[in-house]
Amino acid sequence: MRRAVTLAARGIGSTSPNPVVGCVILDASGEVAGEGWHQRAGGPHAEVHALRAAGDAARGGTALVTLEPCNHTGRTGPCAQALIDAGIARVVYAVADPNPDATGGAQTLRAAGISVEQGLLEAEAAEGNAAWLTSVRLGRPHVTWKYAATLDGRIAAADGTSRWITSAESRADVHRLRAECDAVVVGSGTQRADDPHLAARGIEGAVQPLRVVVDTNGTAVTPGARVVDDAAPTLIAVADDATPAYEGESDGDGVETVRLPRAAEGGLDIPTLLAVLHARGVRSVLLEGGATLAGAFVAAGAVDRVIGYLAPVLLGAGPAALAGGGITTITEALRLDVSETVRLGPDLRVTATLVTKEH
Amino acid sequence: MRRAVTLAARGIGSTSPNPVVGCVILDASGEVAGEGWHQRAGGPHAEVHALRAAGDAARGGTALVTLEPCNHTGRTGPCAQALIDAGIARVVYAVADPNPDATGGAQTLRAAGISVEQGLLEAEAAEGNAAWLTSVRLGRPHVTWKYAATLDGRIAAADGTSRWITSAESRADVHRLRAECDAVVVGSGTQRADDPHLAARGIEGAVQPLRVVVDTNGTAVTPGARVVDDAAPTLIAVADDATPAYEGESDGDGVETVRLPRAAEGGLDIPTLLAVLHARGVRSVLLEGGATLAGAFVAAGAVDRVIGYLAPVLLGAGPAALAGGGITTITEALRLDVSETVRLGPDLRVTATLVTKEH
Repeated sequence: MRRAVTLAARGIGSTSPNPVVGCVILDASGEVAGEGWHQRAGGPHAEVHALRAAGDAARGGTALVTLEPCNHTGRTGPCAQALIDAGIARVVYAVADPNPDATGGAQTLRAAGISVEQGLLEAEAAEGNAAWLTSVRLGRPHVTWKYAATLDGRIAAADGTSRWITSAESRADVHRLRAECDAVVVGSGTQRADDPHLAARGIEGAVQPLRVVVDTNGTAVTPGARVVDDAAPTLIAVADDATPAYEGESDGDGVETVRLPRAAEGGLDIPTLLAVLHARGVRSVLLEGGATLAGAFVAAGAVDRVIGYLAPVLLGAGPAALAGGGITTITEALRLDVSETVRLGPDLRVTATLVTKEH
Repeated sequence: MRRAVTLAARGIGSTSPNPVVGCVILDASGEVAGEGWHQRAGGPHAEVHALRAAGDAARGGTALVTLEPCNHTGRTGPCAQALIDAGIARVVYAVADPNPDATGGAQTLRAAGISVEQGLLEAEAAEGNAAWLTSVRLGRPHVTWKYAATLDGRIAAADGTSRWITSAESRADVHRLRAECDAVVVGSGTQRADDPHLAARGIEGAVQPLRVVVDTNGTAVTPGARVVDDAAPTLIAVADDATPAYEGESDGDGVETVRLPRAAEGGLDIPTLLAVLHARGVRSVLLEGGATLAGAFVAAGAVDRVIGYLAPVLLGAGPAALAGGGITTITEALRLDVSETVRLGPDLRVTATLVTKEH
């Protein structure tokens, strides 16, 4: 199963809106007969790849799958049936499928006389599928807030200069994050200050994320902005009463404008923005800045994971990474779990995930 | 030598103003014959302990020492002579002694016909002696700035509440730091806000640090403050024109007041404060807060090491750990090297050291 989890991870960034799935087929004697992973939405599922690789050796064998085999016919046939047809005797899967359209796979397999077990390496497999599981459970994309700051919590010096607080290694790592997510989101302040490009650069075969600028008043994105080039599609979210400075060309240049309600506390309504992105198939969002937009996401309860790039630098003055968020006293603080710390050149990358609440 | 470095570390916190030193004696056949470390100032040096343990087995053997054996007679005799008297044939030491009163040990050993080598595991041994080496080289104590903050760089919430941002594990670790340092320093803001105790609690056999409050105007430390109890000695530093609210009892209650010049930019002159502490035998200072005092130390170029306790918590508002410091643009930022990251319960402890400049 550990091998299946590793295989599944190869699909991160290219299977959306589908989950990542890995599958290992053992023959009747317990030897590995085939491996597969879900490579891209619309393509064959992991089980199909693995069964093809195993061929006749699958008969009487075991399938180890990171997610409950699907039971529905979408762009591809149901995997449960494919496993039955191949003569598999036993199926072990890590995570049950919470998707109402796809569940029932285990039941179908059992009805066909196959031995079925669930739960092996469930936590590891669920972590690899965090974005997809969150989006199925909450009906909105999984949100990762990313920031880069000094040890003393500054994202820029007092005069606004910030290039480069973090190292080349950290900046390259951000491009990997972008390639893994379906959408990258920034606010109007970042748009104005940095004119960011937001595409994933330097990652071979990367599926480019949807670039999203939350430009409430429609004044930050102007013609010639780097974010409206043709490197990736772009969505500009403006208030429904705004007159945007740029709306994209009518001949379809990959730039779209969407109008959303304003939030009472300023900016756009974050739940509506996330619902719009979810409806477009976005399952994972990388929130890149700035502090005000991140605060609005925190206030909306819409931050699932935090990735901080911490540079061993002291500034003593300058803006913080997060502003607002509606927390005024220590007991209201948003508490997370550190899930990983990694050294990236001179910097430290800290990943923290929201402590999962029972639903 | 690795064993000698480990032995040396046992003395951290109790040998000041002396260095920590570890020594392993091998007999003529290369077997370990004796071990020792410098346990406390005034007590025997590491070499003497190890030679005693080795007895006659030292004759014709090798001494592995973390620091160049001393050549001077202080409260104990010179170690170089002790090694010669014991019939040691070869001495290997890690770090050369920069102390002008003690150098020449290697020369004395060589003159006695002993084979002498320097440099084995030098970096590791120097790290263990960072405080002492800094104080000898710079003529001031080694300064560690310690802070506790959220992932977004806040040391308290917007309403000032801060108990407890970090975990019980992190708070216990701070007591270990206090026990390892000769002095713990806070400013008047922290004194007023927290009424801190500053002693090392829960560490068996701990040598209590000198508690220092930088109370420029003499108004923060008042009778009944926790810092003036008898758990540890206390030094209150006030401006030379201040009238302190509390100066200690005349019958010697362990509380002393020292008058220092004011700095042009406010507060007390930090180099003078450090010189006064150095003159009292303080070789290592733990700077615990607050933000303004830490900024003054940064501005004075007097932070050698930073230890940040980072809690996986987001606040979005509240004060930062470091304020001031005189850095206004990114190119002036104080750059350090991350030397260690450790998980402490839910928190992360990040240690960063100043990138050493050539003198």
